[in-house]
Amino acid sequence: MTEITRPTLIIDKEVCLQNIERMVKKAENYNLRLRPHFKTHQAAKVGEWFKRFGISQITVSSVLMAEYFASNGWNDITLAFPLNILEMSRINRLADSIKLNVLLENREAAEVLAGKASNKIGVYLKIDTGYNRTGIPAGRTGRIDSILDILRKNSKLTFKGFLTHTGHTYTALSTNEIFSSHFDALLKLKKLKNRYHKEYPGMELSMGDTPSASICGNFDGIDELRPGNFVFYDLMQHNLGVCEISDIAVKMVCPVVAKHVSRNEIVIYGGAVHFSKDTLQNTDGKQLYGRVIISQDDEKILLDTKNYLSRLSQEHGVIKVTPTHFKQINVGDLVEIIPVHSCLTANMMGHMITTEGEFIEMMPKY
Amino acid sequence: MTEITRPTLIIDKEVCLQNIERMVKKAENYNLRLRPHFKTHQAAKVGEWFKRFGISQITVSSVLMAEYFASNGWNDITLAFPLNILEMSRINRLADSIKLNVLLENREAAEVLAGKASNKIGVYLKIDTGYNRTGIPAGRTGRIDSILDILRKNSKLTFKGFLTHTGHTYTALSTNEIFSSHFDALLKLKKLKNRYHKEYPGMELSMGDTPSASICGNFDGIDELRPGNFVFYDLMQHNLGVCEISDIAVKMVCPVVAKHVSRNEIVIYGGAVHFSKDTLQNTDGKQLYGRVIISQDDEKILLDTKNYLSRLSQEHGVIKVTPTHFKQINVGDLVEIIPVHSCLTANMMGHMITTEGEFIEMMPKY
Repeated sequence: MTEITRPTLIIDKEVCLQNIERMVKKAENYNLRLRPHFKTHQAAKVGEWFKRFGISQITVSSVLMAEYFASNGWNDITLAFPLNILEMSRINRLADSIKLNVLLENREAAEVLAGKASNKIGVYLKIDTGYNRTGIPAGRTGRIDSILDILRKNSKLTFKGFLTHTGHTYTALSTNEIFSSHFDALLKLKKLKNRYHKEYPGMELSMGDTPSASICGNFDGIDELRPGNFVFYDLMQHNLGVCEISDIAVKMVCPVVAKHVSRNEIVIYGGAVHFSKDTLQNTDGKQLYGRVIISQDDEKILLDTKNYLSRLSQEHGVIKVTPTHFKQINVGDLVEIIPVHSCLTANMMGHMITTEGEFIEMMPKY
Repeated sequence: MTEITRPTLIIDKEVCLQNIERMVKKAENYNLRLRPHFKTHQAAKVGEWFKRFGISQITVSSVLMAEYFASNGWNDITLAFPLNILEMSRINRLADSIKLNVLLENREAAEVLAGKASNKIGVYLKIDTGYNRTGIPAGRTGRIDSILDILRKNSKLTFKGFLTHTGHTYTALSTNEIFSSHFDALLKLKKLKNRYHKEYPGMELSMGDTPSASICGNFDGIDELRPGNFVFYDLMQHNLGVCEISDIAVKMVCPVVAKHVSRNEIVIYGGAVHFSKDTLQNTDGKQLYGRVIISQDDEKILLDTKNYLSRLSQEHGVIKVTPTHFKQINVGDLVEIIPVHSCLTANMMGHMITTEGEFIEMMPKY
């Protein structure tokens, strides 16, 4: 900490390991394969921490990320993004060296895949269970059938099953809403399994968001779980009631550069280029970009939500504080900020440092 | 274009050169020194384009950025960020090899600077002219005097003048509001010049935001202009009435990966990790993350605001379109998106490609 002079993303390895272990055990308890999403950390070293717990299959969100982890020894990867047909040659190259699964949700991409796949590729059909971002609406079995027909044209392609991302749990207003979105998705997927498992006895069901993977207790009929964020968690997950503050493994350490007593504001070196710009609504109705931890007598104190990161410009952050805490924070101090969305914050930084001082490089951006 | 297979930030060099030339001429007309802010492009190659127009002095927003441009031949740099006293040793190292100016706004940092500056450093006092982010409120001459007293303790330090960033022009609701914020800032700075120029005859006034630098016509008493965004411009500036769409030099080219006719939505490969998350309010009151250009018969067509980038997750973007345009855009097409905030978008990408195909690397993130 004493060597930090500019915004630095600190990662608590012990907390990460606990988060991984908890999810691994949960998957074991429910007889699920855990195929964690690696887009949150994007780091080979953090990937190694998963290997200790027997994880050998992963999820990624881009060809670039698949290539990066493949080159770091991962050989069973699901590319959980609608197939980008412009990247077919790189996908074929990847499938030559590792077990690769891709996602389809439309006939156009299925035709290109069937026409161009030159190596064995597993195919999941992406099902929209209510998030309304991507996927085939669960009831549209006509579209499913026609895509399956196309897949049969190329013997390199294997239909692996149905996959969903219940992303609407991220905007749930209560844990009950998470339970109900999850259960609704579960029922929709099971209905599809009932319909298709005779023809495709090996087919599986894959679900994946961190909120439901963390707190739900019914995975009946599900084969695979693909959460990602849980390795770090963040304020968004805490706000959803999905994790404790003590489960959040990443914090941004930022130097204090100015104080403005008339506004009870502290200015930090730490802005949109460090945190990204996701927000939560604070208890006062304002936008919150992060919560504040200060050091006092060698102790770390999490300040209440009257003290919060309230504004970000490119390199500046503005912390609103109460008059009491205003006096305790000085120019030249380091404060810690718990980020709203750890995936985007880590992606911004491109590297992290463990609390033990180990440097963790993330994958290159291009 | 035909080689693009994933989100790619394209920069039109001709448009950049026009933007630079226009601002250079404006500065000449008003007898101002142009010290452009390089945080927008963060690229040595783009910096070279400024040199053609005689630019030799620049502004940056971090020590890291100062080091990067110093190592690329720039030897007169203003570090326009409140002095981060934790980086004093690097600041001293920089000041050993180039002409460096720093910003002060409080006594605490002034004391550290006076105590530790071991090479010649120019000092601007940051004045808050109404943006309420950083700076000494213009009327607080007591604080100004006490900082100037501290600076006198170290003969390496030279008071260079007063500097402001009229950042509230970015949230102006009309060009009139930009004019009035700018004029108000101008009067506040001139009042300070009147008060201090006898004691400091060499002192200057420096202003800097792109909105007022682009459209205002009164710079009486001002010595230096420090806009940055104008080199690229973006939708935010266009929305403010500060530039034409044709002045915007950067566009993100993104592959189309899915279509959902029931929602009139097009899904692109291009998300928060490419665009960052700044938004504008669209004509329908919704959040807009970018505007859409499609190619038709070798022609580029900017779609109206009924067609817009409406949602971003980590790697996905969702474009809302009218039924007519829905039919014209197909899976596997490339669409161009004009970003809301080019500084943050370019920062996200870490590189750009010119319309002529030249690769432009930006500064490293750490």
